[in-house]
Parts: sequence; C-alpha cells; structure tokens
Amino acid sequence: MHAPADPAAAAVPDPPAIVLGRNQYGKAEVRLVKVTRDTARHSLEDLSVTSQLHGDFDAAHTQGDNSSVVATDTQKNTIYAFARDGVGSPEAFLLRLEQHFTAGFDWVTGGRWAAEQYFWNRISDHDHAFAKDKSEVRTALLLSAAGQQHLISGISGLTVLKSTGSEFHGFPRDRYTTLAETTDRILATDVTATWRYAPETDLGGLDFNALYASARTLLLDAFATTHSLALQQSMYEMGKAVIAAHPEIVEVRLSLPNNHHFLVDLSPFGLDNPNEVFFAADRPYGLIEASVLREGTDPDAQVWNTVGGFC
Amino acid sequence: MHAPADPAAAAVPDPPAIVLGRNQYGKAEVRLVKVTRDTARHSLEDLSVTSQLHGDFDAAHTQGDNSSVVATDTQKNTIYAFARDGVGSPEAFLLRLEQHFTAGFDWVTGGRWAAEQYFWNRISDHDHAFAKDKSEVRTALLLSAAGQQHLISGISGLTVLKSTGSEFHGFPRDRYTTLAETTDRILATDVTATWRYAPETDLGGLDFNALYASARTLLLDAFATTHSLALQQSMYEMGKAVIAAHPEIVEVRLSLPNNHHFLVDLSPFGLDNPNEVFFAADRPYGLIEASVLREGTDPDAQVWNTVGGFC
Amino acid sequence: MHAPADPAAAAVPDPPAIVLGRNQYGKAEVRLVKVTRDTARHSLEDLSVTSQLHGDFDAAHTQGDNSSVVATDTQKNTIYAFARDGVGSPEAFLLRLEQHFTAGFDWVTGGRWAAEQYFWNRISDHDHAFAKDKSEVRTALLLSAAGQQHLISGISGLTVLKSTGSEFHGFPRDRYTTLAETTDRILATDVTATWRYAPETDLGGLDFNALYASARTLLLDAFATTHSLALQQSMYEMGKAVIAAHPEIVEVRLSLPNNHHFLVDLSPFGLDNPNEVFFAADRPYGLIEASVLREGTDPDAQVWNTVGGFC
Amino acid sequence: MHAPADPAAAAVPDPPAIVLGRNQYGKAEVRLVKVTRDTARHSLEDLSVTSQLHGDFDAAHTQGDNSSVVATDTQKNTIYAFARDGVGSPEAFLLRLEQHFTAGFDWVTGGRWAAEQYFWNRISDHDHAFAKDKSEVRTALLLSAAGQQHLISGISGLTVLKSTGSEFHGFPRDRYTTLAETTDRILATDVTATWRYAPETDLGGLDFNALYASARTLLLDAFATTHSLALQQSMYEMGKAVIAAHPEIVEVRLSLPNNHHFLVDLSPFGLDNPNEVFFAADRPYGLIEASVLREGTDPDAQVWNTVGGFC
Repeated sequence: MHAPADPAAAAVPDPPAIVLGRNQYGKAEVRLVKVTRDTARHSLEDLSVTSQLHGDFDAAHTQGDNSSVVATDTQKNTIYAFARDGVGSPEAFLLRLEQHFTAGFDWVTGGRWAAEQYFWNRISDHDHAFAKDKSEVRTALLLSAAGQQHLISGISGLTVLKSTGSEFHGFPRDRYTTLAETTDRILATDVTATWRYAPETDLGGLDFNALYASARTLLLDAFATTHSLALQQSMYEMGKAVIAAHPEIVEVRLSLPNNHHFLVDLSPFGLDNPNEVFFAADRPYGLIEASVLREGTDPDAQVWNTVGGFC
Repeated sequence: MHAPADPAAAAVPDPPAIVLGRNQYGKAEVRLVKVTRDTARHSLEDLSVTSQLHGDFDAAHTQGDNSSVVATDTQKNTIYAFARDGVGSPEAFLLRLEQHFTAGFDWVTGGRWAAEQYFWNRISDHDHAFAKDKSEVRTALLLSAAGQQHLISGISGLTVLKSTGSEFHGFPRDRYTTLAETTDRILATDVTATWRYAPETDLGGLDFNALYASARTLLLDAFATTHSLALQQSMYEMGKAVIAAHPEIVEVRLSLPNNHHFLVDLSPFGLDNPNEVFFAADRPYGLIEASVLREGTDPDAQVWNTVGGFC
Repeated sequence: MHAPADPAAAAVPDPPAIVLGRNQYGKAEVRLVKVTRDTARHSLEDLSVTSQLHGDFDAAHTQGDNSSVVATDTQKNTIYAFARDGVGSPEAFLLRLEQHFTAGFDWVTGGRWAAEQYFWNRISDHDHAFAKDKSEVRTALLLSAAGQQHLISGISGLTVLKSTGSEFHGFPRDRYTTLAETTDRILATDVTATWRYAPETDLGGLDFNALYASARTLLLDAFATTHSLALQQSMYEMGKAVIAAHPEIVEVRLSLPNNHHFLVDLSPFGLDNPNEVFFAADRPYGLIEASVLREGTDPDAQVWNTVGGFC
Repeated sequence: MHAPADPAAAAVPDPPAIVLGRNQYGKAEVRLVKVTRDTARHSLEDLSVTSQLHGDFDAAHTQGDNSSVVATDTQKNTIYAFARDGVGSPEAFLLRLEQHFTAGFDWVTGGRWAAEQYFWNRISDHDHAFAKDKSEVRTALLLSAAGQQHLISGISGLTVLKSTGSEFHGFPRDRYTTLAETTDRILATDVTATWRYAPETDLGGLDFNALYASARTLLLDAFATTHSLALQQSMYEMGKAVIAAHPEIVEVRLSLPNNHHFLVDLSPFGLDNPNEVFFAADRPYGLIEASVLREGTDPDAQVWNTVGGFC
C-alpha cells in the first residue's frame, strides 16, 4: 500500500522559517577491482569510489518526491559500467563520472566524487599473482560547482619515523608547562597530504600517476632529510618540495599527527637509556596541520570545505 | 649537539613563491575521565578532548623557531588541570579552554577545540559502579576566530532502523538504472547530526546537557514517526524538529548513510520472503547529507569548514 | 579451459612425510536481520553467523577435488533459508544448523557454528522503529564432534567501571617493580565471559534468552558489589555468581583487560587530585583470565580449544 | 581505608562446589620500539609484546591476596629493561622473558608470551629515516608448561590475490545450492600462517629472522604458482612448502578467508564483462583453515589451544 504523498508534512505543518540548505547524496565506498588482462601479464586497479550529486533535490526532502533523485544504486551501476573501459587513474575516473552526471541530468549542477586507491605488488614478478601493499592509500577528490572542476589529489596513512635528527626546544613555559627540552628525539607521523592543482590547469593533460609517484617521493625525502627543530618545520619543507617541483600544483595541505615515542626511564633498574628504548604511545598525540601554497593563490579554495580540518 | 637553525632551508633556498598558509596545531584525543565524588554517590564524565591553536606560528614552520609554540604537551596539561574544577558539559569545557588560550598568549588569535563525550549508566543504581553505553557519542566543536566563538554540538554513531514505513519509488530511470521500486523496505542509518547556535546567542546561558538530551529525543522521534518516501525526507524532518523546538539553534547538518538491508531471495529454496529475512550489507552504502536551517541564516558559516563534507 | 587435476602436485612431488591435519571450512560473518512481523508490533533479530564443517575433505586439499565440498555459498544460503522459520535464540539456531549439516551429508562428521547477536531497543515504544544498543554483544559457539554437541554461550564487549571500591597492594617487589600500592583506584574492564553447559544437559530444554539475561545481570552485579582487592578477585566472584545460580552451567571463562585509568599528577600546577582526574590509557593494559568451574568438571573441555587464550 | 580481607566472600559464602580452574594474567600489547644506534646507520625493532604468567595465583582470586601476584606493571617494566640489551628476534626475546619469570619466582610454573613485530623500510637508503611497511605482521607465541617451551612463529595480514589461475567446480548440489561453477575466478585471501617447531629443536640455535623471511617467501610463491581448484588446495600447498624446506618445522596452521570478488553483471548496460570488473565484498567471506604436518607429529600440541580456531 502506498502512503499518501507526504503524511508527515500534512500532520505537522512546517514552522514558517525552516528551509533546506546545502545537500548532497550518492553512493559511498563502491569497492571496485579492475583487472586489465589484454595479455598474460595482468594488472590490477583497486579502488573505493564515492559519488555524490549536487543540484535541485528539494522535493525529495520536503515532499518525498523522488522524480529528480538519480538513485544511489544507479550511481553505483554507472561506476561499474565505466570501469569496463578501464580506470587509468583515480583522478581521470572521477572526471569521467563528473562529466556523465552533470551532462546527463539537467538538474544536477555538480557534485563531489572521491576515490581511494590501494596498491598491489607482483609476487616474484608473477604475471597474475599479487600481494597488497597496505603502507599507504592514494586519494583523489573532485568537486564540481558552477561548471568548474576543482580537483585535489593526495596520499594518506604513510607512516614515517626518524630515529634521530629531531629536536624540540625553545618553546614558551607557562604555569602548565612541564615538558623537558630535547635535542634528540624520535619524530614519527602518519602523512596525510593533499595537493591542489591550479584552477587554470588542463586537467586532461596531466599524468596523475606520475604526479602521485613524484609527490610521494618528494614528501618522503623531505621528511628524511630535514633536520627537524619542530614537526611544523618538517611539514613545511614537505609541502614546499611538492610545490617547487610541480608548477601545476599551487597548494599542499598536510595533517600530521605527532606519534609520540617516549624514552623509557630505565634508571630504577640500574640501566641507562641513551635514546634506545621507547614506548610508542597511542593517545593523545600531537596534531600539526598546515597549508603551504604558491604565493598569490586563493587560500580558501572551496574544495577544502569538503575536506574539513582547517578554516 | 644542536643543529644550525635551519640547515634544510640553508641547503635548498626557498623557491621565491612558496608561503605558509592556514595552520593549526595542538594535542588530539586527550582521554579524560573526571569522577565527581563529593558524596558517596559518584558521577562520571568521560571525554576525548582536542585542542588546536591558531595564530602566528610562522617562525616554527619556516625557521624551526619554537618561541611562540605553546607545546602540545602544555595544552594537554591545561586540559587535565582545568578538569580539576569539573567539566560540566563538553561545550562549557571547550569555552573555558578557548578563553584561557586566547587570553593567555598574545599571538594566539583563536583555535579549534573539540570534544567527544562517552556515556555510562549506573549498574543497578549502584553508587560507584557503571556500565558504558556505547550506542552513541556526543560531540562538540568550538571555533574561535576574529574574537568570535562559533560553537556546534552534535551526536554521532546513533544507529536506527525502521522495519517498515519506508518506501522508495518514482526515481528517474536511465541506461544504468536497475533498481526496483519498493513500497516497503527496511530503512536504517547511523545518525551523525550537528547543530549550530545562533551567532548572537549568549552561550554561557545555555544548558547544553538539556539541549543534547532534547535534540537526541527529537531526532529519534522524527526518524521513528516519519513515514519515509526517501531517506532525504526523514532527514529533513529530523533537522526541522530540532530547529523548531529550540530558538537558539539556527542550523542542523545531518550525514546519514543508507545502511542497505537487502531482502534475500528465498525462492530457489521454495520459500517466500515477505520482508522478513534480510542481508545487512556493509559496503557500498548510500550517503545522504543536508543542512536544514532557519530562513535567513548564513548557509556558509565558517565553522563548517572545519568539519568537511559539504561545500 | 580446465586445468589438469593437480598440476602443482604433478610438478612438485609430495615430500613423503607431509600430510593434512585437522581442517575446517565454511562461511563466516553471514549478516542476518530477521524481522518478525506477525502483528503491527515488529521485533528484530540481528546476527552474524558463521558455519564451518568438519569431516573428510582431504581430496579438496590434496587433489583439488571438490566432490565433498559443500560450498560455503550453500552454507550461507542455508542460514538464510532457515531464518525464514525464525531464529529464536542464537543457540537454538546453531543447533538447527548443526543437525542439518551433520544429518545431510555422510562425510560431514561435525563442525563449528558460531553467532554474534546485536541488540536493538524500541524508540519511544514505537511498533517498528528501533535504536541499536551497542554496549555489548551476545555470543554462542557450538562444537559438534563425535556425535556430541558442545555448546557455550557468552557476552563480550561489556565495558564496566568502578570509581572506588578497588585496591591493589601486597604484591611482591623485585628489581623491576616500581608500581605504588593503592587502596583506592578506578577499576575498569571490558567483560568477555563465556559459560559452558553440563555435557548431560538437554539443550533443547533450555531458555537461552532467559539464561543470557540472567548471566548478564549476575556478572554486572558481582562486578559492582565486590569490594575488589585484585581484578582477579572480582573476576572470580563474577564467575561464581553465574555458576551458583544456574545448575546447568558448569564452567565460566572470563577474559578481562585491566583498562588502566592513571591518576594525573596535578601538583606541578599547584593542584591536588583526590582521585578525581584520570587519564584513560589505551595500551598496554592488564589482561586477567580465568576459568571458574563446578568441582569435578572436566577443565579441558574440547570446545575451549576453538576459542583460544588458555591452555 | 583498607577493606577487610574479603568482604564479598564473608557476605556470600562460597557454594561448596565452585573452584578456580586454569588462569593466567599479565600485561598485554606493550608497545616497544628499540633503536639500535651503535653506528650512524640506525636500525629499528618495533613490537607489541604480551606477557602472561601461569602458576599458583589462587589466593588472589579467592582471597584478594596478592602476595604471589607479580604485578602486570612489573612485567611491563621487565620487557622494557630487557630491551636495553636488544631484541634480536621476537622469538629470542620471548624466550628470555620466559627464562626470567620461570626462574625468578618459585610459584610461576610457566606462562604465555606473545609478540607482534612491525616492519620498517629505509627511506631512500637513509641512515635514520624509515617508512612503515604495513603489509603484514610477524607473530610469535611461546607457551611454557611443565618445564617445556612450546614455540610457534607466524605471519598475519598478508593479503594476496590471483587474477586468474583459480577454478571452483565439482562441488555437490543440494536444495540450498545456487552457486554457479567457474573455471576462472579471482582468488584472494589474507594469509594467517603459523608454524610450529619440532619439540626436540634446540630453539637457541635457530635463526628466526631467516626462518621468517624464508617462510614468507615460500608461502607467497606457493600461493602464486599453484593453479588452484580450491582455496583448500592452495592452502595445502602453502603449508607443504614451508615444512618441506625446513626440517625443524613440523606443522603449519593456516587460516585463510576467501575474500570474494564478484564479477559484476554489466549485461543490463549492454556490456560484456570478461573477468575484468569485480565487486570486492566485505562480508560474508569464506573461511578455510587447516593444519599441515609432518607425518607422525602430534596433531594436538598444547600450544594450539592458546590460539583457538581448531579443535
């Protein structure tokens, strides 16, 4: 039995002043594995894809009228159907999805598409056997608004550590300060970095896979080679390295936990501990975040509002 | 041995055009349990608190100069010291922290403070024995910027389900649409809802604990009693209910996964299945998000940019 | 194209002395939601069910011959088909599955069936709207071997805390001991408890739902009311309470982390801390485990070997 | 104020027939990072260590008398103190702990010690900068009972996939069977493997790090090169390979989920799908487990009872 069109609204009239604001909807975490098997030497693309549409969906909210609601199931089907032609890169795949949904439905004015990519290495150079590399996740996020594409790419969960070459001192001391200064500590973090392409970039002309590989190496090497007086300093050098090397990238945002490794006091046991034995703590942790950008760039690009963290 | 002030910068001169943008830092997930034991009947407050400061920390990033860096360890200590006077509510506690840090350090212009609160029920009305209620988490987030406090409160992880009273039909069908229409399905979601107080509110005058309890009940009851033609419709009614009841609340944002429960086809086994046996799927899931607001309210309040999701 | 029966074995002859040992296989974590809707007042049963078969499956391992392999997909289908008749209790449902698989296939000599059950409460006494109670999980495990059913029931993830009424002192001190004695501390744990029924029990005659409710209350109340000189002591009282109340239960096994809550030293800030402000630590944690049993009971019942932990 | 020795027992007399059974206690998940820095080229050992003691701890359970309870905090301290001399391998470290606790306390008759080890790779061959390799975890478990050491080593979380070279057909069909046969499917699993050393092995003479590296390679290569007619067959070949290569290993136990990758039906969209586009499902999953052993070996070694799964 069908219910009447909107019984709730009928029973409880809208208070005059309440309206629908921004909204988006879609299908999240569509797990897609694409095997390319044109030859005996297969390759894998392993992604989690999220599609969300923006546009005029007011009637669904206020009336339960779904005549404009491209079903989330349809969005999922579209992702799988498009994968039949290959993925190529997360960024290229999201751009295809965006074109399809904004061109195909008048009332869809834009949307938010996101992907995570997971990595696999060949086992002993085997043609079709792979072991998953879980050390990091590649990310991409495409915001489409007012006919513009705003794309960011990134890496997350890349855990790094320096066993020396990190100091922390010279910080202000107030009533609540007990931390000792140190000129040699472990510095460890899980890198979440995201880079934004210049608005005028021809996105179709970029080699996103090469860019990812380069950014990853630049981030790692900057972390490794910076003698660190503060995690902030390491972070800034990491962001700079990516922007300096890639003219099409105008901003890098980094979010770095300070994964504390506390030197264990072994003196009660008659032992010294010259920076050798550490307790790796879970919580709390420091959380250090910054944007690094090419001078003159808009520091408040709209796409960041879909990511959170800063303001 | 101290390293020179900034060897990395010395070795690799800054490309001219790269600068530090927005940044924030602090201590995350400080796990605080406060026992109030003025009488034999104890009470518990159990929180995870995050403190991040905004201000002029450029020298730490560019030079490794920490003379302005209020250590994240100091921020942690402050949280525990302040808890000695009681917590009261997550919101009140964050407001105290904000006052302390913005008043105490000239160069701290604001910050972002966040808390999660976890709930405990008494065991058999015992005075000092409790069992944790894991069914939901209470949240609060305070952004301080340009001398203004921007506060949002919320709930997350509240999982709800309707075993009938949910339909989904009338959606457009394109080449990629295979979903059947239904007039009776399970509707299930994990409620993440956040409400924003009117900018002119006297935050010190609010009873945040009572507001939380009321919002929680309003959200649950709106979910339960709305005959749903779309999860969007249920969501909108949930947001409306909170705003309608509380004049100091001007906006509610909701993020609701559609936790799919698929009817199992038992016909190969000679059995019918009149909406009784379901497979509860993990991924993918629908993801339905919206803002509901009092007319005339700024739809792009800055505090939301620290949350993400929308744009 | 089919491969030859066992190319790997053909290429690499078995070393003479390697054989197949114990083995089991099946489908794990079948997510089943059963709605009982005989009247307008619905009820929910929400489970994750695992089925694994024991028997003669040697040829599958050594030859890739699946002629005896009841597909894991078939096991999943059976679970859903059986749910059409209702679940009743996790234990009763597992007993039905065991009967089906051991009676239906000559070469299936037994198996291991397990279930988790999740709880839902009505929203405001609504007929068909529910909120999930995530505070605990109900468990059941049935081992069938040599024509015998070995059943254990349990609870897991039940987090409890006493804010006083817990001491810890009188422990031995050696070179590595630094812990101070205390006569007042927080005692907190996540209860995992499992109870075993007497082998001679008529399992079909038990009201497992009532037993679960009773055991849960007994465990909670014993934790609350025991003035604890050691978590071991609380644990032992918890197990005793369940066995004492239920003649059909001969053994309770408990695994209790000691979730440390460390008193924060506020003296550097000029503050006392009379057991009011605590840091709730993640890791490491104490881990306290024991079996409590009715005298004369076999302490090494085979079913425990499928659970692990003890020996 | 001290409570009386055992008020609970005083108030509620023991039912005559309830006794303490097997028990163990200790400290779990002690997070230890050891830096070896004898030269400028550092190395890292990163572990989570668990120590649990067996012996006569009855009085703690029944009376709250801790005079025999080596505090879990003391066990933690001992782990850190021992790490000052280096770790070497998880197995060697556990053997040292076992010697210490069983020799040092008359009433400690044995115990259960376990470790996980996490891996780090150098960043660009840097001397003291590392990136974590999260693709797998190395495990070790030592049971000490009746003066005997029972040691098992293992690997967990190693996710592997074959994009072809896997078939599944010939399985029996009953009323509940709907699965189609296939001669080409994706085969994917997360390898958990554990190997047991011959009881007569001189454990001190083994190079556990080399054994781990060898077992890992053998497992991966056996998975890759076995043309699989059943996951059982691949599993058996994996276990055989390890035993065949290492005379000191008498048994390998494997627990392998079948991580289903379902071919997406693209025909509604007018597309074929020749094993190229897959949905990677979360739950349910197959769960395939077996022991492979050298003929004549005890199939029920006591150490397995602390691991669970089989019986």
